[in-house]
Amino acid sequence: MELSQENQDLIKKFGATPISKLSETPNFYTFNNKLIASHRDFDKFFSALKKHEKGAILSGLNASGTLHLGHKAVFDTNLFFQKKYKIPVFIPISDDESYVAGKVKTQEQALENSKRLAKELIAYGFDPKNTFFIIDQIYTNIYNLAIKLSKKVNYSEIKATYGYKPDENIGLHFYPAVQSAHILFPQEKHKIPNVLVPIGPDEDAHIRISRDIASRAGYKKPAILHVNFLPGINGEKMSTSKPNTAIFLSDDEKTIRKKISKAFSGGQKTIEEHKKLGGNPDVDISCIYLKLLFLTPEEYKDIETKYKKGNLSSGDVKKIFADKAVEFIKNFQKRLKNLDNKVVEKCILKN
Amino acid sequence: MELSQENQDLIKKFGATPISKLSETPNFYTFNNKLIASHRDFDKFFSALKKHEKGAILSGLNASGTLHLGHKAVFDTNLFFQKKYKIPVFIPISDDESYVAGKVKTQEQALENSKRLAKELIAYGFDPKNTFFIIDQIYTNIYNLAIKLSKKVNYSEIKATYGYKPDENIGLHFYPAVQSAHILFPQEKHKIPNVLVPIGPDEDAHIRISRDIASRAGYKKPAILHVNFLPGINGEKMSTSKPNTAIFLSDDEKTIRKKISKAFSGGQKTIEEHKKLGGNPDVDISCIYLKLLFLTPEEYKDIETKYKKGNLSSGDVKKIFADKAVEFIKNFQKRLKNLDNKVVEKCILKN
Repeated sequence: MELSQENQDLIKKFGATPISKLSETPNFYTFNNKLIASHRDFDKFFSALKKHEKGAILSGLNASGTLHLGHKAVFDTNLFFQKKYKIPVFIPISDDESYVAGKVKTQEQALENSKRLAKELIAYGFDPKNTFFIIDQIYTNIYNLAIKLSKKVNYSEIKATYGYKPDENIGLHFYPAVQSAHILFPQEKHKIPNVLVPIGPDEDAHIRISRDIASRAGYKKPAILHVNFLPGINGEKMSTSKPNTAIFLSDDEKTIRKKISKAFSGGQKTIEEHKKLGGNPDVDISCIYLKLLFLTPEEYKDIETKYKKGNLSSGDVKKIFADKAVEFIKNFQKRLKNLDNKVVEKCILKN
Repeated sequence: MELSQENQDLIKKFGATPISKLSETPNFYTFNNKLIASHRDFDKFFSALKKHEKGAILSGLNASGTLHLGHKAVFDTNLFFQKKYKIPVFIPISDDESYVAGKVKTQEQALENSKRLAKELIAYGFDPKNTFFIIDQIYTNIYNLAIKLSKKVNYSEIKATYGYKPDENIGLHFYPAVQSAHILFPQEKHKIPNVLVPIGPDEDAHIRISRDIASRAGYKKPAILHVNFLPGINGEKMSTSKPNTAIFLSDDEKTIRKKISKAFSGGQKTIEEHKKLGGNPDVDISCIYLKLLFLTPEEYKDIETKYKKGNLSSGDVKKIFADKAVEFIKNFQKRLKNLDNKVVEKCILKN
């Protein structure tokens, strides 16, 4: 996978560093497959971890969100570090932002969504003994750290970074202080100096300002990984508000197979042509997902070769992808069903 | 006492109502002496109280504050309602605003000040069984109500009302949502529909916007009393940052007597002239304080007459004022000294 346009922009215009320049990267699929292609200060974080210094992952979610396959790369990266280095994962679920940004109608709805997401994440595989959810409506003490940080950033900077207009509400204008509080929480509360924040490339501007605030307030700047987005299933940009662009972890088998059957394909128009010319795996959504998320390089190479030669049809690669996705999601749903709410409740930080 | 310029402005330009238009006012010195000269919806509040409907007083303080005689009118008004109608008094102490506005250097300092103020207020006379302090750093749950209300007010309105500049921090820009949360707290949390907020005339603009937010968020608009400022002891505007303008409740007897000895006087330049021409009680600080805060109309009339005739000197009225102030403050200090911290701690709201 080539560097995405987002990664290129972050590197060229905003001083991010290509992962390829690191002397050593973790041997994990999200790095190997270049799903993660740029970073800020990851070298320092990684070297601290290897020296057994205290570290943590900070990985936020919006309370309006619905988990889908697009989240897999971030979650698996977090899990890799949690398992391999036994470090805690802090997961802020920004129920307040969901409300002030109008993504949910009521604070009650935001709270309910947050609790559901927390449960889903534990079911996903996060270690309940080492995972901590910050739901702002519950852990309202986050407000004290937000106030501390709010003093270090002015309205003009927020306007320039977030593009908020004067007719937008003041909760939205304040939220960057809360987001900064989330990111600095492991340092402030748990004295963990090395914090890694995996984000989408589109969030970099927000985190850049949080890093500046961190520095102004006397904290260490957290390290950043830019985790690329996957293309939407139907070839459009993936969006939770467009159900056909994403495969949700709540989808049933029938829905998953139906969505994948309509996935954007790199095959030829007719079977005859396909057998003659072969498919184009570089634009084929099933191939891309299989390559990036589900298969080892060897497993994928085999499929790619056959697909290029026309020995595998579009339908064939769709079926392979669908089988993998169904297996993965069914296992998740089974764990979710069997998960005791009490286990999750213990992971939600209280005042 | 004539209507102050502030009261006149509030009435003429901003739709406040003169107290004189009420068909009935409470028989209490702050009303009788026109220390309270204008209001918003006080008639509704008062009539609800008399019908034994649920009511509350909401009276805030800044954590950077130091109690002085200028606070007496507000506190005594609050106490009058608390005692006579057995209603709770909620006292938000805005430690967060003190910090983001730079009135204190650290959040820790703001918290310490807040606790000291809470203790002083209980010593002042507030009923510990029916007084509740909202210290934002402790009762961080106030943030949830602030977020709810923050959605109902935009940046332009805050800018217009508070005059904040774009280079001022975002904590300051958010604070109006927290202030609104304080004011609506008795309604939201305790289902008390009738809330009275006594404020200085200079705070009216802030409370006007809070009343608008209340209404947009489906709450009843709290009633307002405008409690006038007293002139500073030395004739300047009273300000806690200028110790000679105010008599603090922490001043010792010597300091009090010294300040009053230098108080602005309405007497003549020489004793001979004074005996001949008499003093002017309308500009004499000692007379004003005695009249407005310490004496019954009959007691004051006697002094006024003698002062006007020159039978009482400036020194004489200063001594009468000093004796009253010393007695009042010594009693307060004695109660403060004997007050158990545990009693105060119970009055501080917890999450």
